Amino acid sequence: MSRILTLNAGSSSLKFGLFDASVPEPPLVASGHVDSIGSPNAGITVKAADGAPLAAEGPGPVKDHADALDRVLSLVARLFPGAAVDAVGHRVVHGGPDHDAPVALTPAIAEDLDRFSPFAPLHQPHNLAGVRAAMARFPGAVQVACFDTAFHRRHPWENDTFALPRAYYDKGVRRYGFHGLSYEFIAGHLREAAPLLHSGRVVVAHLGNGASMCALLDGRSVGSTMGFSALDGLPMGTRCGQLDPGVLLYLMDQEGMSAAEITDLLYRKSGLLGLSGLSNDMRRLEAADTPEARQAISYFTFRIRRELGALAAVLGGLDAVVFTGGIGENSRLVRARVCDGMHWIGLDLDPDANAANAPEISAKLSRVRVLVVPTDEERVIARAAARHLEGRPYPTQRSLR
Amino acid sequence: MSRILTLNAGSSSLKFGLFDASVPEPPLVASGHVDSIGSPNAGITVKAADGAPLAAEGPGPVKDHADALDRVLSLVARLFPGAAVDAVGHRVVHGGPDHDAPVALTPAIAEDLDRFSPFAPLHQPHNLAGVRAAMARFPGAVQVACFDTAFHRRHPWENDTFALPRAYYDKGVRRYGFHGLSYEFIAGHLREAAPLLHSGRVVVAHLGNGASMCALLDGRSVGSTMGFSALDGLPMGTRCGQLDPGVLLYLMDQEGMSAAEITDLLYRKSGLLGLSGLSNDMRRLEAADTPEARQAISYFTFRIRRELGALAAVLGGLDAVVFTGGIGENSRLVRARVCDGMHWIGLDLDPDANAANAPEISAKLSRVRVLVVPTDEERVIARAAARHLEGRPYPTQRSLR
Repeated sequence: MSRILTLNAGSSSLKFGLFDASVPEPPLVASGHVDSIGSPNAGITVKAADGAPLAAEGPGPVKDHADALDRVLSLVARLFPGAAVDAVGHRVVHGGPDHDAPVALTPAIAEDLDRFSPFAPLHQPHNLAGVRAAMARFPGAVQVACFDTAFHRRHPWENDTFALPRAYYDKGVRRYGFHGLSYEFIAGHLREAAPLLHSGRVVVAHLGNGASMCALLDGRSVGSTMGFSALDGLPMGTRCGQLDPGVLLYLMDQEGMSAAEITDLLYRKSGLLGLSGLSNDMRRLEAADTPEARQAISYFTFRIRRELGALAAVLGGLDAVVFTGGIGENSRLVRARVCDGMHWIGLDLDPDANAANAPEISAKLSRVRVLVVPTDEERVIARAAARHLEGRPYPTQRSLR
Repeated sequence: MSRILTLNAGSSSLKFGLFDASVPEPPLVASGHVDSIGSPNAGITVKAADGAPLAAEGPGPVKDHADALDRVLSLVARLFPGAAVDAVGHRVVHGGPDHDAPVALTPAIAEDLDRFSPFAPLHQPHNLAGVRAAMARFPGAVQVACFDTAFHRRHPWENDTFALPRAYYDKGVRRYGFHGLSYEFIAGHLREAAPLLHSGRVVVAHLGNGASMCALLDGRSVGSTMGFSALDGLPMGTRCGQLDPGVLLYLMDQEGMSAAEITDLLYRKSGLLGLSGLSNDMRRLEAADTPEARQAISYFTFRIRRELGALAAVLGGLDAVVFTGGIGENSRLVRARVCDGMHWIGLDLDPDANAANAPEISAKLSRVRVLVVPTDEERVIARAAARHLEGRPYPTQRSLR
């Protein structure tokens, strides 16, 4: 049986999926994830498509992403000994200006993508390590890169540029936007489940350890809160989000910090962790209920509300808000705080539906509908890989020229 | 006759006013400005309160701000030989975390304010040079500093912080906001002219060579698009506005630029100038009508619309928009482009009123009213100086404790 393996490396996690290679909707065979990579208490779990546990390892040490990947590939080989992996689909966070669709990787393309590692240091190096490991382990398989930036590549110029001398735009200093695989899944879900909303004005809030928001018009991205790197926009677990460029000049000039030190500060020590002094994990902050944890949550939800207004202006109004990602799918508190005081825009929450984590949490008479949709980046990756196996890859802007 | 002199130094200009020292509303005696400082074609004009020209010099060279100030002070002495300048009111752009009201300057306070020069390099050094020159020229006069940050100092914590480790907030890395003298004037104007709006939800767009927006609730600032430095928020004549912090890391790491080089790029070569490749002057961009000039204007108005939605979310809705500053008061095109497609928020423009530069440019049935109000920072400075002369300075947060 021909199989597709998907790999999705986060800053301290590795998610994977094993799919049958069918088009258009590859059936899931098994999925799993490695958590807390780099800690002595990492864990690996694998479950079948119906949720039944297939394997669990840990808590124990998982040294780094290479180690995690090795363990995952061995587990997959042991659990599915007859499975021929014909395609490996990779989440690659940054595709730069040229990639607006998934691409079959060659060693040269993979090497070229390393250029963008400085702009997503928590993800891109791990994504590309996964590509190299999978190429070595499955030399006969097609390796398909699916980019988080691709979904946004056709947004309007005004949301693609910064107000810098134009040479920087030409060099690739642009507002790329990320979490595109998640937004593509949500847009596809809306097309099936709520076609009228799909053709309207929708803001999707992907809230996880990384977080961003996307403005969808007729199912297409017209704007995002994230920009050139994975730092901008909403505050995140350990990332700062929107920051006055003058603060970086201050850090350089007055505090004498190097680029590496500022990178470490803004990517790994800021965000919810920096504000709370406690944790990057929303569950821990909600449970802790210290003044600093409460302030961190307030800042997070304040910035989401602010961007919700901003993206409504980009869209020329608002028909629906979709919450997704670990926090968006699970935190009743965050969803309630974001929707609080949004009556002016026509949005009223149903507190009971929100408390029940219902798929629709807006009040019956709310003009703006509010949905909670679990995202599935692995499925988007598997679809792209299946199309490559079929010899019908998604068209790229280049191929359309 | 006791007189108040006001000084307001911009990046390449110096505005001044001479007022009778009366409370609460010092009558204007004369005003003037030096333009194009640093160029061989600088000009100085002085006019009486009724607009009648009193003096004009140039076009000719004015070397720098010190030279400009010297010329202004000599002109004032020549035109008003009997005038005893008892108070000099200074616009000082950055007051840091401690100043939430005008303050009578001592040499020590003036020296301390130099700490903030790196965060407003186009203004603060010139503001403080004016202070030192006025102290030397009018040793018996009270020197009153009026801060552009003061009006914002009581906004909520969520709009005061960045998502950095908390130690940075304590060190003064905060979202100060600027153009506070202009916003204070507008808030005072609304209190007199439109008390119902004054007590409502108002966004003021101060659009000049520097540009920002302020969210007013009940006449008080609850949020601003500008942050720690004079770089953040809207794109400006030569400043970048909102920028992904990852872009600065790129400039440091990949392009090897120093803090001084990045400062020069972001403060002096970006914004409308950088995008158009032509000019920082909106009048020239409108007249030029090149593709690049059109794109620069599109980006400028796109970012204003985006922030209008964001600040409406901060305010929980919107009752009025006020345009002010050189561009806000004069550019029909910019106002029309900002208001275009804002029906969703209840805002409809009256194109004829807009074309006529009328004081109110919203359509009769527009729920959100749109006003054009000429700002007068000099008057706000003169009022503060007059109160100091009377021995009744504005209370500071400190003095209220």
